[in-house]
This record gives sequence, C-alpha cells and structure tokens, in this order.
Amino acid sequence: MKSERVERILVKMKEQDMPQMIISDPVAIFYITGRWIIPGERLLALILRTDGKHHMVINKLFPQQGDLGVDITYYDDIEDGVEIMTQFLDTDKPVGIDKVWPAHFLLRLQELGGGSKFVNGSPIVDKVRQIKDEEEKELMRISSRINDKVMEELIPFAAKGLPENELNRIVRELYAKYGCEGVSFDPITAYAANAADPHHVTDGTVGKRGDCVILDIGGIKDSYASDMTRTIFLGEVSDRQREIYEIVKEAQRRGIEASKPGNKMKDVDLACRDYITEKGFGEYFTHRTGHSIGIEDHEWGDVSSVNEAIIEVGQCFSIEPGIYLYDEGIGVRIEDLVIITEDGCEVLNDFTKELIVVPFEG
Amino acid sequence: MKSERVERILVKMKEQDMPQMIISDPVAIFYITGRWIIPGERLLALILRTDGKHHMVINKLFPQQGDLGVDITYYDDIEDGVEIMTQFLDTDKPVGIDKVWPAHFLLRLQELGGGSKFVNGSPIVDKVRQIKDEEEKELMRISSRINDKVMEELIPFAAKGLPENELNRIVRELYAKYGCEGVSFDPITAYAANAADPHHVTDGTVGKRGDCVILDIGGIKDSYASDMTRTIFLGEVSDRQREIYEIVKEAQRRGIEASKPGNKMKDVDLACRDYITEKGFGEYFTHRTGHSIGIEDHEWGDVSSVNEAIIEVGQCFSIEPGIYLYDEGIGVRIEDLVIITEDGCEVLNDFTKELIVVPFEG
Repeated sequence: MKSERVERILVKMKEQDMPQMIISDPVAIFYITGRWIIPGERLLALILRTDGKHHMVINKLFPQQGDLGVDITYYDDIEDGVEIMTQFLDTDKPVGIDKVWPAHFLLRLQELGGGSKFVNGSPIVDKVRQIKDEEEKELMRISSRINDKVMEELIPFAAKGLPENELNRIVRELYAKYGCEGVSFDPITAYAANAADPHHVTDGTVGKRGDCVILDIGGIKDSYASDMTRTIFLGEVSDRQREIYEIVKEAQRRGIEASKPGNKMKDVDLACRDYITEKGFGEYFTHRTGHSIGIEDHEWGDVSSVNEAIIEVGQCFSIEPGIYLYDEGIGVRIEDLVIITEDGCEVLNDFTKELIVVPFEG
Repeated sequence: MKSERVERILVKMKEQDMPQMIISDPVAIFYITGRWIIPGERLLALILRTDGKHHMVINKLFPQQGDLGVDITYYDDIEDGVEIMTQFLDTDKPVGIDKVWPAHFLLRLQELGGGSKFVNGSPIVDKVRQIKDEEEKELMRISSRINDKVMEELIPFAAKGLPENELNRIVRELYAKYGCEGVSFDPITAYAANAADPHHVTDGTVGKRGDCVILDIGGIKDSYASDMTRTIFLGEVSDRQREIYEIVKEAQRRGIEASKPGNKMKDVDLACRDYITEKGFGEYFTHRTGHSIGIEDHEWGDVSSVNEAIIEVGQCFSIEPGIYLYDEGIGVRIEDLVIITEDGCEVLNDFTKELIVVPFEG
C-alpha cells in the first residue's frame, strides 16, 4: 500500500469518527495499493481501520503476486465473501461503505450485523484523491504531454474532412502508438452542427469547407487520464466563427486566471460564464466549466457555478467553456487541464489556442 | 412497458410478500420497458408495485420520447433524486432493492426511511428473465444464426495463422457487417498453449502448423447475445489432439442430451463432467459447463455441479465443456447455446462440430 495516501485517509477517518471503512471500487484500491484488481461482479474489499488492522478480501480467481503491504484473505465462489469479510470488522462500531458497492453486498452485511451504523465513506477517499501528490502530478504531466502530440498528429486527418468515426479510430491508434492503455473517454470528433449538439453520437459525417471541428480527446498513460479540446476550422473561417472562437478563448483564459488557492471552484466557472454572458452568449454555454481528473477522466469535484468548495494546492481539473449555436452550425470549445500551485496553476497542455484554419484537403 | 413481463414479476413479488421494488439496472429496465436508458453514475429507478402504482425516476439529461407506459418524474443534478423517489414508495412497507444499485443510493434511502425493510429484489427479476418468451427466443435464434456465419467467415483467417489480436479485430468487423451492435464479450481467439491457459490475454501470437485454435465468439444483435466456441486444427491433427477433441465433443453431446425440463442444472454439468472424468481428464476440465444467456452474455443461473435448480421450459444457456492440457499445448472447447423445450432442447447453433483440419496457409 502507498503509506502516505493511507495516512491521509486515516487522518480524515479519525476526524469523522469513522473507525473502519470498506473500499471496493477498483479505482480507489489502485490509488491506495498501486495494484489493479478487476474482479467484475465478485466481492473485493479493502478494509482500512484507524487502529491499523487493515485487511483485504479477494476472490481466489484473482490471486495476487508479491507483497501488497496488507494481509489478504481469499474466498471462493461457493463461500460467502461478505460473511468472511465481517470477521475483520468491529461489528459494534460504525463502518464506512464504498459509494459504488453493489447493494446486495451491503444488504448482506447489514443482515449479518457487520457494523453499528453504515455510512457512505467515499467522500473521504474522493477528497484525498482530489489532491494529487508529486508522483501523480508527474503522471498527469506525462499523460497530457502525449495528448499534445496526439492533437498535433490528429489535426492533419481532420483537415482531410475524414468521417468522424474514422477520426475516432485514428485517435485510438495514436494513443496506442504513444504507449497509452487506451482512451480516457470516447473521443469527440465533431464537424459543424454536430459540434454544437450535446447529444451527437459519432457517425459517418465528413468535414466540409468552412466547418468548425471540435476535437475533444484524452488517453490513459500509466493509469492517468488526459483530456483536452481544441476547435479548428476547415479551409476558411467566417467573421461569426472567429467572433465566437475569440470569446471562448478569452473565457477560458479567465478560467485559468481564476484557478488559484483560496478561490472557490465556482469562481472558475463564473470567470468563464460571466464573460460569455456579458458577450451575449450565456444561454449557449450549456454545461459546467469543468471536472476534476486523475486516474479517472471524471473525478469527484466539479467546476460548476454551485460548487462552493475552496480550491486547494494539488487539485487537478479541466477548464472547458464552450458556445454552441446549433442553428448556425457552430460549436466551439477549448479545454486544458490545470494543477493548482501555491500561487495559481500549472497548465498541463502546451498545444496552441490560437485560432487554427487548416488548408482544407477534403 | 412489456405487460406480460411485468405481470410475471408482480406474481413473484406477491408470492414473496414484496409490495414494491426498485429496479435500477439498465439491463433489467430494458427487459421490462423495451428501452435502453444508460444514465452512467446518475440515479435511475423503475419502481414496480403490486398495487399497480408503478413509477419511474430519471435524470433530466435523459429525456424519454414516446410513451413508456409508466409515469415518469424527472430530477436534475442539483436535486436529491433518492428523496424524490421516496414519494413513490410506501415507506411503512418492505422494499426490494436492485442487487447492483450503488450503495450510496441505498444508504440515502435508508437514511430517509424509504421502507420498513430493505431486501435484495433482483432474484425475482433474474428468475423471470431466465425464462425466455417467444419474442426473446426468436431474437436469440437470429443472434446465433449470425454467429454461425461469423464463425464460418472467421475460420479462413485463423487458417492463415494471423496474430490473435488481428483475428480479434476481424471478429468485431464481421459482427458489424451483420448489423450487430458489438461483441457480447471480448472474443477469445487462442492458439496452442494459449488455448489451454485460462488467464491468457489476446496478444500477437501467430498460428503454427499443428496448432489447435479455440474460437470463442459472440455478438449482440437487437440487444440479444450469442456465444459459441469451436476448436479447429491448423494443417494437421495429432492422434492425441483427435482423442481430446472427440472426448469433448461427446461430453458436449451428453450435456445437450441432459438439457431437458425436470432435470437439474447440475445434471447437465455432470453429464459432461462425468464423461470427461471417466476418460481420465476430469482435472483438466477446469470450469463450470455453462451459463444462462439472453440480453447479457452471462445471466443469472449457471450450469455447474452445485446448481440444484430444476430446468424449466424457456431457459437458455450455454453448454461448453473443455479439456486444457497446458504442458502439451492443447486446449479444446466446444460450445452451443440451447433453449429448453417441452421434451428436450433446441440447439441454436448449426455450425458443424465435426473435427475440422484447415489447410494451413501460415
């Protein structure tokens, strides 16, 4: 187990009088142990206890090699994994439950009297995960550096006006080429009105001269996700498109400027939103400004107008305002990832945000 | 909603004194409503009640067009969906909970006193889903008919000894060609010792003369899954390989023969297992004989030596014995799907089970 991460979780558990917690989400278990264990529908539990008597319960089908730094009990498919797990809990004390634990396990634990009280323990882990340590920051940088390269190599294909689903395939190949495990979400490669349609599903649409193209892409490298959006124009750009682009670009710059310790998460959203609104397009910025990111593309803590949480050093999130004029066939979004520093933030993406008009070869 | 399916669920709810049930699994909701709603981590609930006051609660991001045959309440991201849902429950009565409902929803429902008792309601839905109706049987037949064709078109590529991951890609393309939504599981296309390794992950291994090749493939057509395995031989077959093949083939035939109403699920497993054991290879048949299948590749109810459940008309499951001799580089599995009829079963796969030796072109 990664002792500093465990320690940070235990501190919060003590603060909240939660003597023990069941962690079942493979992502959280990877965060804590450095090991991916993907048991599908089968029970997997890491029990963290403030008295230090941590324990893991794993199905025999997933034997672990090497030392995980925690005792493991294995069970098989004809045993009751929850009952076995209960031995490692203080049944007369409250127990934190993983937010994504399937209900049938929790119902069984309650039936067995596995704790005096059952509460959602995930906010503790999620808040710890929100603050990236140095190892994670470096992994986020490496992942985003690859994303810059993939964007650069992708644009010439978009310049040909290739079908969206073909671009999509190319995005996946590019991440594979750079040694990524995969994409961090289904790539968005959308032309013209498709770029302005939040419900658009990638299809065979090809690019035409004068189209805007939203490229919203991310890969996973060494278990850490990248996520960046650029909007480019094919062959030519209209005054209207340029106007929209520059507004989004300035809004995004203001979002980055507002990303510093002491500000609230909502301040970042409003920095973008107020500017877009002031320019007359508020109703066409139809989503929150961003989301936390790390091992998962979307992690706990969003950059929205209602998030009152104070920004802390080490947080990592996206800043991605957009304007979507479906009837005009114009959609523009610009997105970078940032890590909060002592006095502001470090932008993880280097790829230019200057307006790009590519020679159209379609 | 599909009224006959709802009715069958309500009958079982009454039998078990469960006046109301929360269904959240998109697969179960598709089964009942005919509509796919995939809300990711957001709350989705179909409440079925024996008094007929059914209700659905859906996030506003997933607006439903057309009549679903049930009243819908929409909530948004800043509302408490569970609290809204609670209005449609009799809080002084027991409530069935979907087995896969994320724990944080259940904890919130318990906090709100959403019911007098909380029990796992999924076994009711799973048992109903196990018995396919005529519409489903026809969809299963269509899906498996495509699988026969894909197997036929895949074999010439395997005969070239193409890398496993290349075969894998071709499998996906073949299902797409036949109008499938995708594969029902990651295809297994494994040569020689890889075919005998339960933990083998598809890689760049190519086929060699004399290799056995396990092709375990399935697609999803109109939301219903297929699943079939054949084992072929490249260029030549040794006496040992032929011996193993014929044992597995006869075991599988016996499994099919045992698949009839009144027998137990374990009888099917043992029909295969006892024969393989008798021939001296019992310890090399390292998995259960099969699994139920329908909308999902693996549904509730397995064909294992410990499943005492009586087989009923309308069940659909796989029969897939195998023998795996890793040290000899031999793995053989043969799998068909069956639907239980009044006096036996209908085999959904037509593709030959005679031993195939393809001319090796590698």
